[in-house]
Amino acid sequence: MNPLVDDRDVEVILDELLDLAALTALPYFADHDRETFEMVLASARSLARDTLYPAYRTLDEAPPVLRDGRVHVHPSLRALVRRVVELGFTAAPRPAEVGGSQLPLTVFSLATSYLMAANLSVYGYIGLTQGAAHLLEAFGSDELRATYMAPMYRGEWMGTMALTEPHAGSSLSDITTVATPAGDHYLVSGAKIFISGADHDLAGNIVHMTLARIAGAPPGMKGVSLLCIPKQRVEHGALVDNDVSVTGLVHKIGWRGLPSAILAYGERGDCHGWLVGEPHQGIRYMFQMMNEARIMVGLNGVSTASVAYHESLHYARERTQGRTPGATSPVPIIQHADVRRMLLRQKAIVVGGLALLARASFYSDLAQHAEGAIAGRAQLLLDVLTPIAKSFPAERGFEANALAVQIHGGYGYSSEYLPESWLRDQKLNSIHEGTTGIQAADLLGRRAMAKGALVALGQEIEAACARATKAGVDAAWIAELRRATSVVGALTAELAQRGLTGDPTGMMLHATDYLELASTVVIAWQWLELAAVAKEALAGSLPRGRSTRDERYYRGNLAAAQYWIRTELPRIDGLATLCRDGEDSYGALDPAWL
Amino acid sequence: MNPLVDDRDVEVILDELLDLAALTALPYFADHDRETFEMVLASARSLARDTLYPAYRTLDEAPPVLRDGRVHVHPSLRALVRRVVELGFTAAPRPAEVGGSQLPLTVFSLATSYLMAANLSVYGYIGLTQGAAHLLEAFGSDELRATYMAPMYRGEWMGTMALTEPHAGSSLSDITTVATPAGDHYLVSGAKIFISGADHDLAGNIVHMTLARIAGAPPGMKGVSLLCIPKQRVEHGALVDNDVSVTGLVHKIGWRGLPSAILAYGERGDCHGWLVGEPHQGIRYMFQMMNEARIMVGLNGVSTASVAYHESLHYARERTQGRTPGATSPVPIIQHADVRRMLLRQKAIVVGGLALLARASFYSDLAQHAEGAIAGRAQLLLDVLTPIAKSFPAERGFEANALAVQIHGGYGYSSEYLPESWLRDQKLNSIHEGTTGIQAADLLGRRAMAKGALVALGQEIEAACARATKAGVDAAWIAELRRATSVVGALTAELAQRGLTGDPTGMMLHATDYLELASTVVIAWQWLELAAVAKEALAGSLPRGRSTRDERYYRGNLAAAQYWIRTELPRIDGLATLCRDGEDSYGALDPAWL
Repeated sequence: MNPLVDDRDVEVILDELLDLAALTALPYFADHDRETFEMVLASARSLARDTLYPAYRTLDEAPPVLRDGRVHVHPSLRALVRRVVELGFTAAPRPAEVGGSQLPLTVFSLATSYLMAANLSVYGYIGLTQGAAHLLEAFGSDELRATYMAPMYRGEWMGTMALTEPHAGSSLSDITTVATPAGDHYLVSGAKIFISGADHDLAGNIVHMTLARIAGAPPGMKGVSLLCIPKQRVEHGALVDNDVSVTGLVHKIGWRGLPSAILAYGERGDCHGWLVGEPHQGIRYMFQMMNEARIMVGLNGVSTASVAYHESLHYARERTQGRTPGATSPVPIIQHADVRRMLLRQKAIVVGGLALLARASFYSDLAQHAEGAIAGRAQLLLDVLTPIAKSFPAERGFEANALAVQIHGGYGYSSEYLPESWLRDQKLNSIHEGTTGIQAADLLGRRAMAKGALVALGQEIEAACARATKAGVDAAWIAELRRATSVVGALTAELAQRGLTGDPTGMMLHATDYLELASTVVIAWQWLELAAVAKEALAGSLPRGRSTRDERYYRGNLAAAQYWIRTELPRIDGLATLCRDGEDSYGALDPAWL
Repeated sequence: MNPLVDDRDVEVILDELLDLAALTALPYFADHDRETFEMVLASARSLARDTLYPAYRTLDEAPPVLRDGRVHVHPSLRALVRRVVELGFTAAPRPAEVGGSQLPLTVFSLATSYLMAANLSVYGYIGLTQGAAHLLEAFGSDELRATYMAPMYRGEWMGTMALTEPHAGSSLSDITTVATPAGDHYLVSGAKIFISGADHDLAGNIVHMTLARIAGAPPGMKGVSLLCIPKQRVEHGALVDNDVSVTGLVHKIGWRGLPSAILAYGERGDCHGWLVGEPHQGIRYMFQMMNEARIMVGLNGVSTASVAYHESLHYARERTQGRTPGATSPVPIIQHADVRRMLLRQKAIVVGGLALLARASFYSDLAQHAEGAIAGRAQLLLDVLTPIAKSFPAERGFEANALAVQIHGGYGYSSEYLPESWLRDQKLNSIHEGTTGIQAADLLGRRAMAKGALVALGQEIEAACARATKAGVDAAWIAELRRATSVVGALTAELAQRGLTGDPTGMMLHATDYLELASTVVIAWQWLELAAVAKEALAGSLPRGRSTRDERYYRGNLAAAQYWIRTELPRIDGLATLCRDGEDSYGALDPAWL
């Protein structure tokens, strides 16, 4: 049976890598301790393994259909989604006053990784609903919160994020959906595309958190507002059709349990929307939720790579083929070094990614619920890590998913086996919630430039180096990470200078290489600290009653740490050279030359 | 309209990169000249563009089904395959005496790249048939040639290569299909899996070139024989069912016009097979055809990346989104540097790959049809380049295909657009005809070790460097390729020494990194020489009546050359360090640690 995510990884990240006590000491989390966390994790695991994972293939094989203007999803979805709602996951990290359980995002992220690994689409409905409700919680009026947020957090209604328009794609400044004032509400007219969960019959209502332009608003980002536009509006206590129609389905190549649709607002001139917060602040509001959404995408990526890693690990242990020197009969393919290479690379990406996502969630918890300088510093760290946490699992996770297919050989190329479906699922993560190119521009152009961000990051890495030194980790690994960190610092300063002295194009030319460089270093940091954890555990004769099984586990982490630090980390020098030298092959490329 | 493959690339490779005159001077090619080549290319282009490409989506959407023990392929396939047969492509490179037209493989490869880019599956039937017939031509008795080879070369019958068995996968030494002597033939019993084109109704008969073990044969590779096993055998001039049955279909994720099936031989005890050549020589015979088959797979990879590259190039020119500094309205996305990065990377992979495949074909032509030292040297070069020509397009081509999806954004993630289908098609190429891991082991363990192979390769690269110097190519690029070539030489010698002194495991530990290193250098060589060609053309005021259009074309090649040499080539030092230092994270990894 595929474990989806390795429980030991989750335990080690929570108990040994991160300072969980720093969270439980905060008033917001006062009702929680390690035992309540364990209950959350245990219930997520069992739902994921017993219910969501067995339902995955059916959903992949029978995507939603559009019939008579309605989206029909697979009939099994109703019960599956209900089970996740019953888990309380729609509002889990939110305050008790809105129906949440004030669970640290750190724990919530790790728990949801099981659900995502089991069945991305099912969790998708819940994640989107939480995002939509959170926008109303943060910026909506009391009335909007009571009418639309509350049923979403209760899981009775669901929500979507309706940003993208057909002509504009990622360019939110070109949004043309129009909202015309009409008393207490607006009349909305326009179209959206790629709206996940845009229509289905899994809930009593669907609330579209929509970016639109109030008639007469200034052009560009500054004229975009956030509106709450339900599928059915509440009038005199009854639900009335609100003139939001589905004009097409996008036939996605993965995530096939979750419909993606084209929406038209106001085809009959009767689509009501309610302004959320102030006019023209829509982009700002959305961006305040963006870190959270991007961390969710990063978790999608890690989880999708994780389930495939475990599937290929199991296959590599069972499948016999070929011989190692001296063997007289075929051996399990895990005995071949090149198969172990493909497994260890997957592990390095999956567990390194999971540690990073948990850490970003940890900073988010501190940023939101600690006070003063601690919160501010955590926010800086969260901001600078988010583009990496979003894009690394998408890019390297896709590679990991391809390796899982490769390990399965010809079988991996068939739909009788599941790895190909996860490969399809994964590809979305480099596209939605800001493409990898956008993450790169955001990291180098804004987040790494934020005052104090890289200093704080350097301090965190240095703390990991100190811990590793104390634990007796290979000094060469520590030195290599220290050196890499200084490369990031010097390079960033040099590029910032280039931007300040009138050459922003030159500064940004290799933003994607910069992102890859920074990601490689940040993952190396996770692995160095996981290596420190392993050394501590092994030296301490495996505390807390652990066994030989644990010793093997820690040795596996040391191997993955070595792999990443010695095979991937050295690549940063070449990447830094490209950023620094301004290699201009595509920069100076005239499109007519292609 | 998607050009599938850029005609200018093909022209430049044939006319300016390679020494075509060295081929046309050979007696075997005496009936050919540039004009006959152009006719072949023109007819392939027009069939590919007008007929095969428009049929692609239909085949992808309606894969073969197994019904009543027979495989039913899409009804449109009969006419499509017939058109390729009419082109004369089944036997084109073969001698006139067997019905071929003695076309250089160099030209044939470039011509087939259009067919593959248009519709991999359709060409697949023909490529497999040619391979099967070629085995009989090379090793079969006169009777087998007359009975089974001739109708295959005429395109009336089709053929397959039946190597893989369910339990054995890539490990041909574990084949268990048994052939028991029964007079002039053998009675065959056993099962094969992943047999492409194993059953269909597109031809009068299907001939399975099958690896099997004659009853009582020694174990391992040395006991494997090659048998000709038709679906229907010829008895007294009539076709009689030969007891080969289809027991299952593999539901492939791509190449969906070409069935892949599980075959059972002799379920009724009446499956006749005929020995091809001598007993126990099956592996040797197969391997003599292997270079050709692997070059075909390399071309599959290049072609699949090429069609997607052109699709994304077209999309990037048409699709407007976002703004460049100073722009007041959305610009075509090709104006964004990061989109040009993704396009130029695809071009570098596609055109660099195509040049390599054409060059490998050129060496194959010389090896087979030149004489003495020239032929011997060409064979060495072909042997050492084949693992690279097979695996580079599969691995980097997959990455290129993913970039084509990425450029299409959310649309790329939908089956309304074609890039996702080519991504699925491409993945097979790292698996069939020897996985990438097998190519790596073959390159480092055998082919690079062949006496004189690397010397000959070094001479070829040095000739390219000299040409580049003369043409005025950037001296730094030339120096970098020279240095890279010496890195390959020194590293190979060091690893060979390690193998000879009792540490073959240490020698082979980073074989995959060695393959990547060698591939990067070999593609840099193609690009340096294409840069030389560009400089020659630009300096010579565009010979042969060429225009501004050509000037732009050559500048594009210079940009791609710069891209590969400056961004990819420097990576070899890190790879060499891994090979040399014997980094042992996965080498020493105990499977129990995972």
